[in-house]
Amino acid sequence: MHTFKRRHGASTALEPVAGNGLLNRRALLGRGMMLAGATAAGDGASLTSAAAEPLKDDPWSLTMGAITPPRQEPSRFEKNVVRTLSNPNNEPRNSHARTPHHLLQGTVTPAALHFSINHSGLPDIDPEKHRLVIHGLVRQPKIYSLEDLSRYPMVTRMGFLECGGNSAPMFSNEPFQGTAQALHGLVSNSEWTGVLLSTLFEEVGLDPKAKWFLAEGADSLALHRSVPVKKGLDDAMIALYQNGERLMPGNGYPMRLLLPGYQGNMNVKFVRRIKLLDQPSMSFYEAKTYSQIIPGDRYWKFHFLQEVKSFITHPSVGHSLKGPGFYEISGVAYSGTGRITRVMVSADGGKSWGQAALQGPVYPQAFVRFRMPWRWDGQPVVLQSRAWDEAGNVQPTRAEFVAARGQTQRPIASPLAFPNQHYNSITSWGIDSKGEIKHVYA
Amino acid sequence: MHTFKRRHGASTALEPVAGNGLLNRRALLGRGMMLAGATAAGDGASLTSAAAEPLKDDPWSLTMGAITPPRQEPSRFEKNVVRTLSNPNNEPRNSHARTPHHLLQGTVTPAALHFSINHSGLPDIDPEKHRLVIHGLVRQPKIYSLEDLSRYPMVTRMGFLECGGNSAPMFSNEPFQGTAQALHGLVSNSEWTGVLLSTLFEEVGLDPKAKWFLAEGADSLALHRSVPVKKGLDDAMIALYQNGERLMPGNGYPMRLLLPGYQGNMNVKFVRRIKLLDQPSMSFYEAKTYSQIIPGDRYWKFHFLQEVKSFITHPSVGHSLKGPGFYEISGVAYSGTGRITRVMVSADGGKSWGQAALQGPVYPQAFVRFRMPWRWDGQPVVLQSRAWDEAGNVQPTRAEFVAARGQTQRPIASPLAFPNQHYNSITSWGIDSKGEIKHVYA
Repeated sequence: MHTFKRRHGASTALEPVAGNGLLNRRALLGRGMMLAGATAAGDGASLTSAAAEPLKDDPWSLTMGAITPPRQEPSRFEKNVVRTLSNPNNEPRNSHARTPHHLLQGTVTPAALHFSINHSGLPDIDPEKHRLVIHGLVRQPKIYSLEDLSRYPMVTRMGFLECGGNSAPMFSNEPFQGTAQALHGLVSNSEWTGVLLSTLFEEVGLDPKAKWFLAEGADSLALHRSVPVKKGLDDAMIALYQNGERLMPGNGYPMRLLLPGYQGNMNVKFVRRIKLLDQPSMSFYEAKTYSQIIPGDRYWKFHFLQEVKSFITHPSVGHSLKGPGFYEISGVAYSGTGRITRVMVSADGGKSWGQAALQGPVYPQAFVRFRMPWRWDGQPVVLQSRAWDEAGNVQPTRAEFVAARGQTQRPIASPLAFPNQHYNSITSWGIDSKGEIKHVYA
Repeated sequence: MHTFKRRHGASTALEPVAGNGLLNRRALLGRGMMLAGATAAGDGASLTSAAAEPLKDDPWSLTMGAITPPRQEPSRFEKNVVRTLSNPNNEPRNSHARTPHHLLQGTVTPAALHFSINHSGLPDIDPEKHRLVIHGLVRQPKIYSLEDLSRYPMVTRMGFLECGGNSAPMFSNEPFQGTAQALHGLVSNSEWTGVLLSTLFEEVGLDPKAKWFLAEGADSLALHRSVPVKKGLDDAMIALYQNGERLMPGNGYPMRLLLPGYQGNMNVKFVRRIKLLDQPSMSFYEAKTYSQIIPGDRYWKFHFLQEVKSFITHPSVGHSLKGPGFYEISGVAYSGTGRITRVMVSADGGKSWGQAALQGPVYPQAFVRFRMPWRWDGQPVVLQSRAWDEAGNVQPTRAEFVAARGQTQRPIASPLAFPNQHYNSITSWGIDSKGEIKHVYA
């Protein structure tokens, strides 16, 4: 590993790798890491000048603290770290709750903050009464209770879930002003534990004619989607646990279908029936909402995969830079196809790129956190990230994406008349000389 | 991969690898997995016989569900999945909150359920006012705010934290009757994100005489421990995030020291001062509570490492087996030394062993979930797990451990007169012919 000589206040010790101050990612690794100019620590905040303040006790250091609760909750100072709601009064329509990516770090999304979309509210399901039926083109239909499934072999895997409509505001022909939460908050990443669907398929015995299955939820719309049997046999799971505990109600309690890499809606929550079929059922959601509209009045009937994608969470809209100096640029990358192999970062709107560090281990179909050291000189910049996956897919530029998939003429896409699915181009954050951040197209 | 021929109701299709029904772990992998007799799915619960019940709608499938909240909480049916408290009225003494391992799965401990021990309650710290000072034998003392640290390069890593007193009830000379939560609930596993201490040490510049540092918290006892500088340079972190969000108040909000593999108490919470010293400070906690008492009226002064350990969570005390047939045995293993390389499981009290499957990827100094397929014949059994780490350390039997480290003559160890630290032997669960489970010594 490369290490760097250091002089206090010197900014020449770090190798630039691309325009506008991107530094070599090796600068992040281990003890060789140097902060150029050390401004991040607050020049002038030396112990000598400010010793009187931190070395006296704060009020919380002077008295016995609060009671320890059975279930911990975040500090009252973190009350803004919540999901934003599209339907806070629970009117009879969809309810979106978006993950605050600009306020999170690492790769695990806390279950409390995992995105959710419910089409008819949150069902209050008694897990002892809930049943999963597998029937249709099978040798022996079976009914499973939650307790039955608890005896089966389980698997644990990290995995992202993303709504097919995540990032839909970016179909707009003017950049929508919102945080990473508003733009990209319909994707989250959890550790899921459950029973492989292949285990249950083997038990019920599939008829060779079974090519698709219809999965149906126990919510009052009985949300249902058709899934190829091949996906069921490859890596589908009946998920029972999310980040170690039972699924959250908004994420499918007590059990959901998990289809790694496929659009969120197909990962049917509250799953109660799986019916093996010789063809797709052409249900409401696949006949209408989740068809992919593309330019030329055409659409793709079955386009399930969430393609390779990344976005910068730090810094991003909702933050501001406090003067020139060192910052870490970081964000998340993921691909429905498999593992992320590379993320490049640009600070000059795509003219030059430096390779970001990936925080390993890198799981397939899961978030990876990328990190890039950066020294801002106080001039306007445009930050971008771009991801590659192990199948060689590359995240498109906005121009490439719009050429292939279209855009709307309105700030927010209508689900009926305009393309609004599977948006995955590069996101650009423009930072002005005051350190203010906006969403831009670049 | 091996696959198995299947006949309905046959129990001969799976290879036994050890006594009392342990099966080859390959049976867990992929589509070859067969359930012997399929009793787990409930024989007689075929669709034909029970179709009327599950194919009608449950009440929650008939009406609009509840409102989507900004921060999700578990279902009301999961209200027993909480930490148990040693001091529920917050009297002026320690407060332990234990993780319910027998009710969790996977490897991530939800932050809400991460164990905590507070010596003087939960401080209510304003993160904007909190400061971290690094001083003592350094070239340039520095003061860091949370906002300062947010600009530094961060790292993300999975890691367990374990109280040195975890499993102390097992020092008793009769088996303490309690769940895995009561016995082993003072260990948990999270994804931590923060700034490497080596980065900050490099910035302040260590005096060559600096061999130890004293870390002190902002709680009202100003809990403080001495740590070797080498550990600070190797892998110590100032942790700012836990499972993606800010630390929980009980886990050190807004920042804590993280020392991968070292006993919990040294991972100073609410950390406000780090003073570089030429020797350990011999503070209260290392002079008394956290000295390791061993047989012969001797003690080990500095014994920081949490050694290789495992325990079975499923099935365990608090569960009961519902008749003979297939079950999955699973649990967690971890080592302060590094990665777990192997976990063996016995169903006959240690006479014969089969190798469990490890759910990858396996991180150093972090939980790994192990899984073992098992067919119970309805006779009494004793389940055990035993772990090995990459340094070749092996989890001791209880007899080996007691010979080396001693035991008490009382059901619960006193912290003053008896050994009560770093218990890591094999745990044994005895299951009788009714399927009832007890903690036993075997």
